[in-house]
Amino acid sequence: MRLQEIVAGIRPVDSAWIERAAAHSARLVMPHRALGRLHAIAEQLCGIGQTLRPSVASKAILVMAADHGVAAAGVSAYPQEVTGEMVKTFLRGGAAINAIARAVGAEVRVVDMGIIPELDPALLDGGDRLRVRKVARGTRNMLRGAAMTREQAAEAVLAGFDAAAECFQRGVQLLGTGDMGIGNTTPSAAIGAVLAGRDPEAMAGRGTGVDADGLRRKREAIREAIRVNRPDPGDGLDVLAKLGGFEIAAIAGCALAGAHHRVPVVVDGFISTAGALIAQALCPAVTGYLLAGHRSAEAGHQAMLDHLGLEPLLDLGMRLGEGTGAALAMSVIQGAVAVFNEVFSFEQAGVSGKEGG
Amino acid sequence: MRLQEIVAGIRPVDSAWIERAAAHSARLVMPHRALGRLHAIAEQLCGIGQTLRPSVASKAILVMAADHGVAAAGVSAYPQEVTGEMVKTFLRGGAAINAIARAVGAEVRVVDMGIIPELDPALLDGGDRLRVRKVARGTRNMLRGAAMTREQAAEAVLAGFDAAAECFQRGVQLLGTGDMGIGNTTPSAAIGAVLAGRDPEAMAGRGTGVDADGLRRKREAIREAIRVNRPDPGDGLDVLAKLGGFEIAAIAGCALAGAHHRVPVVVDGFISTAGALIAQALCPAVTGYLLAGHRSAEAGHQAMLDHLGLEPLLDLGMRLGEGTGAALAMSVIQGAVAVFNEVFSFEQAGVSGKEGG
Repeated sequence: MRLQEIVAGIRPVDSAWIERAAAHSARLVMPHRALGRLHAIAEQLCGIGQTLRPSVASKAILVMAADHGVAAAGVSAYPQEVTGEMVKTFLRGGAAINAIARAVGAEVRVVDMGIIPELDPALLDGGDRLRVRKVARGTRNMLRGAAMTREQAAEAVLAGFDAAAECFQRGVQLLGTGDMGIGNTTPSAAIGAVLAGRDPEAMAGRGTGVDADGLRRKREAIREAIRVNRPDPGDGLDVLAKLGGFEIAAIAGCALAGAHHRVPVVVDGFISTAGALIAQALCPAVTGYLLAGHRSAEAGHQAMLDHLGLEPLLDLGMRLGEGTGAALAMSVIQGAVAVFNEVFSFEQAGVSGKEGG
Repeated sequence: MRLQEIVAGIRPVDSAWIERAAAHSARLVMPHRALGRLHAIAEQLCGIGQTLRPSVASKAILVMAADHGVAAAGVSAYPQEVTGEMVKTFLRGGAAINAIARAVGAEVRVVDMGIIPELDPALLDGGDRLRVRKVARGTRNMLRGAAMTREQAAEAVLAGFDAAAECFQRGVQLLGTGDMGIGNTTPSAAIGAVLAGRDPEAMAGRGTGVDADGLRRKREAIREAIRVNRPDPGDGLDVLAKLGGFEIAAIAGCALAGAHHRVPVVVDGFISTAGALIAQALCPAVTGYLLAGHRSAEAGHQAMLDHLGLEPLLDLGMRLGEGTGAALAMSVIQGAVAVFNEVFSFEQAGVSGKEGG
């Protein structure tokens, strides 16, 4: 089975390259590690790419879109049609992810992983930026059984893997994950509760802005989905199939692809982090290839980040998804790489070192 | 006196424009304020510029450089020559601020506010990016009296004001402050202690990396400087003259210039924030025109930010100065402006609103 081969081919990030990179950082004309996390970011990229000349000149955001059976339980503030409407907006370049991606110099690609409407790329403005890898027209309602079959879960992960691998083949050096799917904070919270071992109550937040009743329904839905499905936290594909979404699966596939092809992947917020948790459950070494773009305002995100062992780059109260946090964080990564590659050494600069040092 | 006229000409940021801008944000195709602080940043820029089309296409960092008499007290890990050596590195484009500024599309200009060496711009690589506004060849040692005269303090603030105003005349729409001056965390901490009303102990940190003895000397120097000079916290120019540095004064001048010319100013870390505190003491309305680029790893920075009422945009453990935190934060501001200007409204996108909303 292809997923097992992929996982078997993933190695932990090479610590020898990280050490070599840290030795380079130490020569830069500034007090030792005075740029804090910027050094660690650049060195992580060196470890991932096994290089001392990291580059993030070519960047892309993959927005994975899908619909969710659980939306029927009234867990979102928006009607389900919005998923497809927003996909069209991404293709027309009018969404927040488009604006931020343009600002940081990243391209935006969208993958229809399983939205309800049938969109024909040939008939759409910007349709060349859409790939259709529809697993089904939305998941089933996880309150009444598994959201998808195990086969569908694997298919969706592999579709995400392929979409990312295609980006890397085109030369993309830094990939950001994004999501669109009305209702998808609920499956993400359920996945977080199971894999990070937290109380479902603590994992549910207001998402796109549900009211108090909606929040109550969400909490009940998460508890009920876990009760009905009894997902096995030791089996990532089981958790994904029972509680997941097709876009969450595809994001897990992106994370695996980054690790397999040794390209850094910037994880966006709450939904993307659920995808990263699935990837981690499938292959723990994946986390070394990931950077957390930002800390979402959504309750429960921190618990998921803690479980992944990732510290977010930004903390700006964002809670939109689409890949917006990942895209914005790319500018920090770009700054880190610029410092690593461009700053003179003490010797080149002719600057005196530490007193008596 | 010119400084009084400048201060008298500063008005608080126009809240009516901020409200108009917030109404625009509410129409963008996303859940209400789902991009958190990005909305507030763009709206602040609208208020500052009295516009609904904010632009930060043209950006600059002004690095203010000066030497400090208090360096004789052994408060820095680096020899005083490094100030001038780093100025030359800035002009050659080889420092961290150059790398980050290039990454975000900002130009770097340097002002010699009072370094010890006499640098002739005509004889230097990149000398066209240097302005010489030397008030003196370094301040006097504040442990034995005021660091500068009141007249010198006003002259230095005005020089910073002029340098910023010159940028604005060239079309700069977003200005970042930066600093270079061996020993300058000590005067900055002293200013912070007096103006933010904190214990000198809590304000002193390791700066560029002093050892335990150096840190002890720093703390003693801060206490001694305050004891000897008795600065009046109600008189910003008095605090500046007694405890300041010429670059700190110039940064205060940049803040005043931003407020006077209605251009947003991104304040860098510890030293720049001391400059912002001086500006606030001279003219409280100034703070509405400022954005805090980042939270420095230097102890005491948070207390200074709290006193200004500013929440930093980034928190990456940086502690270099030069304007690096301000420059990196410009990418966040750029993202915020892109969202505000470019994202479709719900109507344009043809996307359904909230259920029953």
